[in-house]
Parts: sequence; C-alpha cells; structure tokens
Amino acid sequence: MKIYEKSLAEMKQIAKSYTKQASDPQVEKRVADIIANVKERGDAALKEYAKAFDGVALDNLRVSQAQIDAAYDGLSDDLKSALELAKKNIISYQSMEVQNGFIDSSKSGIIRGQKVTPLQRVGLYVPGGTAAYPSTILMNALPAKIAGVDEIVMVTPPQKEGLSPVVLAAAKIAGVSAIFQVGGAQAIAALAFGTESIEAVNKIVGPGNIYVATAKKQVFGQVAIDMVAGPSEIGILADDTADPVDLAADLLSQAEHDRRARAMLVTDSKDLALAVSQEVGRQLETLPRKAIAQAAIEDRGFIAVMPSIPDMFALMNDLAPEHLEVQLENPMQYLSDIRNAGSIFLGKYASEPLGDYVAGPNHVLPTGGTAKFSSPLGVYDFVKTSSFVQFSKEALQEDLAAITALARAEGLEAHARAVESRFRGVTANENS
Amino acid sequence: MKIYEKSLAEMKQIAKSYTKQASDPQVEKRVADIIANVKERGDAALKEYAKAFDGVALDNLRVSQAQIDAAYDGLSDDLKSALELAKKNIISYQSMEVQNGFIDSSKSGIIRGQKVTPLQRVGLYVPGGTAAYPSTILMNALPAKIAGVDEIVMVTPPQKEGLSPVVLAAAKIAGVSAIFQVGGAQAIAALAFGTESIEAVNKIVGPGNIYVATAKKQVFGQVAIDMVAGPSEIGILADDTADPVDLAADLLSQAEHDRRARAMLVTDSKDLALAVSQEVGRQLETLPRKAIAQAAIEDRGFIAVMPSIPDMFALMNDLAPEHLEVQLENPMQYLSDIRNAGSIFLGKYASEPLGDYVAGPNHVLPTGGTAKFSSPLGVYDFVKTSSFVQFSKEALQEDLAAITALARAEGLEAHARAVESRFRGVTANENS
Repeated sequence: MKIYEKSLAEMKQIAKSYTKQASDPQVEKRVADIIANVKERGDAALKEYAKAFDGVALDNLRVSQAQIDAAYDGLSDDLKSALELAKKNIISYQSMEVQNGFIDSSKSGIIRGQKVTPLQRVGLYVPGGTAAYPSTILMNALPAKIAGVDEIVMVTPPQKEGLSPVVLAAAKIAGVSAIFQVGGAQAIAALAFGTESIEAVNKIVGPGNIYVATAKKQVFGQVAIDMVAGPSEIGILADDTADPVDLAADLLSQAEHDRRARAMLVTDSKDLALAVSQEVGRQLETLPRKAIAQAAIEDRGFIAVMPSIPDMFALMNDLAPEHLEVQLENPMQYLSDIRNAGSIFLGKYASEPLGDYVAGPNHVLPTGGTAKFSSPLGVYDFVKTSSFVQFSKEALQEDLAAITALARAEGLEAHARAVESRFRGVTANENS
Repeated sequence: MKIYEKSLAEMKQIAKSYTKQASDPQVEKRVADIIANVKERGDAALKEYAKAFDGVALDNLRVSQAQIDAAYDGLSDDLKSALELAKKNIISYQSMEVQNGFIDSSKSGIIRGQKVTPLQRVGLYVPGGTAAYPSTILMNALPAKIAGVDEIVMVTPPQKEGLSPVVLAAAKIAGVSAIFQVGGAQAIAALAFGTESIEAVNKIVGPGNIYVATAKKQVFGQVAIDMVAGPSEIGILADDTADPVDLAADLLSQAEHDRRARAMLVTDSKDLALAVSQEVGRQLETLPRKAIAQAAIEDRGFIAVMPSIPDMFALMNDLAPEHLEVQLENPMQYLSDIRNAGSIFLGKYASEPLGDYVAGPNHVLPTGGTAKFSSPLGVYDFVKTSSFVQFSKEALQEDLAAITALARAEGLEAHARAVESRFRGVTANENS
C-alpha cells in the first residue's frame, strides 16, 4: 500500500487525484428511450424487457405472497435471527430520527407551526445476482416504515434461476408491501410514472448499476430519489496505539466491495504505516475477493503519515469519507473535530462491518466527498414538512405596513392589494 | 376564469394537463461550455462573461464593504423596519427547525448517536434586474445563518446601472459574508469549483433563469443544490363562508408572478365560484402587471366545483400546491386532511402574501407537485448528520455471530474477518 509523507496541502491534492464516474451519453440516450417506452406502453414494455434483458418470460410481474412466505420459511435460523437482530437495532436507532413538527402560539392571534407528513408510496430498487444484499433491503425499507410510509414497493430484476430467497425473506422481514420482477432503467420508469400493475411512487431509493443510476437522475423531479452512491470508502485515523492487523482487515473490508473502492489510512506513526501496509499485503493473499480488493488497494488506497493529530483531522475532513474509523486513544473526545463523514466508528471494537449490519445506524451513506453536504439515509428522507400559519385580523393589521412596503418595493402590487383586501372600507366606514 | 364541475377523477386529469418545463439541449451545451471555461480559467473567464453578457467591465468581482454599508444607510426607514420585522419573524420561526442530534447509551458497552454539523460554506444566487427580491435574500440566507454555516457567499449579475441598493442592504441585514458581481451559469460554476476570488462552496441555493437552473443541475453532486423552483402556485380551498373579493385578490397575487403561474380555487359552492370568477376579471383591470396575471389566469387558472369537502381535499392533495389557503369555517380542524402542500394558510386573515414576507416560515417552497415529496427550504437544508457508534469488546462479541453470518451470506468474507480480527487467538489461547 502506498505510503506518503507530505504536507497537508500536498496531501489534499494527492487525495483528490482520483477520477469521478463520468456520464456516458450513449447510456443517457438508451435510458431515455426505455423510460419513454415504459411511460407509453406500461406492463407490455416491462415484460418485453424482462425477456430481452433478463431472459425471463413473465406472466405476472408481481411476486406472489406464497413465494415470499416460502422463502421466509426456508431461511436458516442463523440468518433469520441475524436479520431480526439487525431489524431490532435499526428500529431502535432510527426511531430516534423521527421528527415531530412543532407549533408556536406564543403571540396573541398568531399560530405558526410545522406539520410532518410521511411520503405516501416509496419504491425500493434491489439489484439482481450477487449484488442483492439482504442487509441493504432492511436499511432502505425500515426507515420508510418508521416514517409511516403507506406502501413500500420493491422492484428487482427477474432471474433465470428464480429470485434469491434471502432477498424475498429480507423483504418480508423489512415489511415491504409488494415485490415486482422488473429491473434496470425500466423498473425506475415504472416506479416514476406507473403502469397497469405498478402504481407510481413519490420517491425511489436503493442501489443499482449505471442504467439504474442514470434512470434515477432522469426521473428526478417527477419523483424524489436518494443520492447516487459511488464506490465504498473507508478512512481510518489511527495512532500508534492501534492494532495494525485490525486496521488492515478493516481497510480490506471496504476494498473487497469494488475495484474503485477507496481505503485510506491517516496516521501520525510511520511505524504503524509500515506495519499496516505489510499486513494488507499478507491478508490479501487469502481473500476470496482478492482480485477486487487488490485492485482497489493498489489503484486508490493510500496511507498518509501526517505530522500532527490536527493535520490528520484536517486531511480527513477534506476527504469526507463515507465511513470514518477513529482508532485513537479516547476516541470520543475527538467528536467535535470531525466535520465531514457519513458514519463514524469510535475505537478498536467499532470495526466498520459492525455498521454495515447490526449496529443500527443506516449503511446507505454519502460517498465521493458528498459527506460535506449530505447525510446518511434516514427516517427524515421519507417525510416532508409543510409550514402553516393562522393570523387574527388584529395580528395581520399589525404587519400590514411591512407587507405592503415590501410587496411594493418588489413591484408586486397584487400582493399588497390581497392583504389590503381584508381591511377594505375599514377606514372609510368602520361600521360597514 | 374557467369553472369546472367534474368528478374527482376527471378533475385530477384536467388539473394535470399543464406542461412541465422541458430541458433544452442547446442550453445544456452552452452551460456545459461555460462551466468548463470557468473551471479552467477562473476569474479571467468571469470577467469576460461580465463584459460579454452584462456589458460591465469589472476590476474587482467582490463588492466592497463600503458600497454595502452605503446601500444600507440609504435604505428608507419603512423598508428597513419591514426587512427587520421579516428577519425577526423568520428567525423566531425557523429557529424551531434546529436539529440537535441525539445520543443513546442505554445498552451496556454501546454508545450510538447522531451528530449534526452545519455546512461550511454556502452560495446564494440572486438574480439581477427586477427579479431581485430582497425578501428572497432573507429567506435563503437566514436559515443558513441559524444553522451555523460559517460563510454565506452571494453572487449576483453585474448591472450597467450598478447593483440594486435594496439587494445590498438586504444582504447586510441577512448576514451575508461576501458579495460577488457574477451571474448566470458562470456564477454557479464559480461557486461549485472555486476561482482565485471565490472559494468553492458546499451548497448553492437561490432562484435563477434557465441558465442558472441548468448549471445548478450540472454541478449537482459536486455540490448540493436546492430544488429548482417552477412557476408560483396558489391553491385555495373555500366554502360559501369565504369572501370572493379576498379570494380573487389572493389568486391574482400569485398570478402576477409569472405567465406560467397557477391560480386554483377548489370549492363546494357554485355561487362562490361564479363570484370569484367575476371578481378576478374586475380586479385584473387595474393591476400594473395585468398582462402577466391575465395570461396566467386564462392559460392555467381554474375553479373546480366539487360535490363534497372530502373530494375538495382529495383533489388538492393531488395538486400538491406550493401555497395552500384553507378558507373554510374552522380551518385548523382540517390540518390532518392536508397531505401535500408547501405552506398552508389557515383562515381569512392568512392571505398568502403574509407568508411571502413577514410571517416567518420560508417562502422558498416546492412547486409543480413536488410538495408530495419535498419540504420548504429550512434550517435542515444547511446541516448534515453523521451517525456514530462505539462498542465495547463484550458488546461486539455479542453481535459477532450475526455480523459474520450476514457478511458470509452476502459473499463478503473480508467483512467477517475484520470483526473476527478483534477476537483472534481468543479461543485458541485465552491468555495470549
């Protein structure tokens, strides 16, 4: 693993030298065509795509409840209890994210408040094949459940060998309302615009390939979408009290996701840097996904040795990693030094995969530096707010001069007159 | 004004029959070129565009503090106190939107929490000419201030006749950190990528023309953006207790914004419908912005007479208007019947322009039906959250089996090994 000993400014530049996924005009065009076709032809288009792209002829797009129940019943006890534990902890943590709105009636004649309303229908995309993670189904569906969403509709590509039973079981555990066999851009189009079988939703969440991501961007505005996730990232802040074997294992846990994953260690100890680099090489050898992890480590992984702890935090805040491990002595004391990170893991035993599965916080997190302005997926993503006001005549009259002054300064005469309409004739004839 | 007496289903279809703003490939291309040029050539490009597009030769992009102070000092007392009243009420309302994060330490060995962090730098676009509304500067900058954003950078197109003093004064009242004379797509590019004079920001907010909106979409992902606002909308729910003169005035207050504005009245009273329609015609005659308001009313305004109050709400929730007035008897009792609306105005004296200026809730609101999934601009738009966890060895051990079961079910061996690394040698030799 590459080790750098550079200044903070140089190190920030080096860390930036990775490329973003560029958009592909050909993909854009194909996705636009698919969306237009689904919009026009509905279920018929979805069935044609299932045959053409997935090699599956479908009579019904919707998965039967019997098939879902059978998948759940067939789940191993180990996996069932693991998913139930994950569910319990997700609910206990993410319920703390629930917003309640507010009301203020402290001024005579004035009531002002905020009303929180769950979205009505949400769509969840679940990729096919080996990229179908049951944990991700829980992470996407449960906050919507907690928020009070009426219906959570899952879409997933048809598979020649049939849908993954673990995926179906996880959907049942997560409380998904209905599952449809439809994948790719066509699934996103169906969720955004509706078809005969699939009612349109208000928001689409869940990971997917470039076609799914492009389709989500194209329907954005018609419906809401979650962030478009980039490759996984882990940033570790460690001093010489940290265990190099643990650190190497944690770096590799993210590197195994994707050749473009980013594993980054920032430390003030050259000795630790050398030990971790060696350990990464050693542990790589026996990994089933060695090829992927090795490519990620070699192309995009790095270790930065910095002169001080403040410089370590300055660099890491600039990187704004999806996952941040703080493996320093007394890690909790640094909470206020962390400005940008999706999810923060404090201390030796908060190994990143703990957060992927059972700790409770969401594992759908901002990537690619977007933690500078984005939050983890949460209950707040499945509600929206409305403000409300009620004023008495006296309260409105008190603000009348200010409203009309501003309206007329902005050249909006009808705005001024609308408020004045409530007092028409008042000065001319108080008794009218 | 057109009056319909249709079923709920028919009325939903009729209401949908307005076109969305389509994207223009030529604009897309020109904006992409401008962004690339600013990214490469920085301030030099900005100054060239100022000359070419705005006809202004600039030495300094940044507006001097002396110019801002002079504008503030020259503001009329009426406008100054109106803006100060607006500021006070915006702060008192939007401070209730502040989020505090949470921490849970109820389980032995486990600390889980959510940390709320303000964005560091925010950019605010303010259009030039007559579209520069001082109220909008307050509505965009103050929630960022309340959130604790370090720097709020305002950009606005250079004007041959000099920048509007009211705009500069409003920026000072709102606590804007710096003002730069740069407009259009080039301003958005400068905010997203930074130049010699303008440091890059984390989020860009504020209204703008098609070039600004297109540029915001193109830099989305590099930075966060607010929603792209469509034409103004007002939806009014009224029964025969409402005053047709007031209703007509309120409909026109939104119609005067834009030829594409939507003014919609939904009522159960045919008499009211006829009276409002007549009043709209009468009041239009004397409006300074008659041409605009008339076009909006004729092309896109309508009155729907529905058979019942539940149908009135069903239709209005489907319309999901930016502004919703409830001019029914005892309006507060209907709060739970409203599902989709940006801002809600309850009763005769909550005339919509009250909310545009001084009531306190934000006037930057979801349009075009996006209130089904979007919220008003608020303090929450200027912070982001990070989850954090700290586990003891014993707490991690308790979850070990579940984590490794899920990791291996998902084919992610390195995930399982990272957690197991913390317990290596434990079973083989407890004393090692």
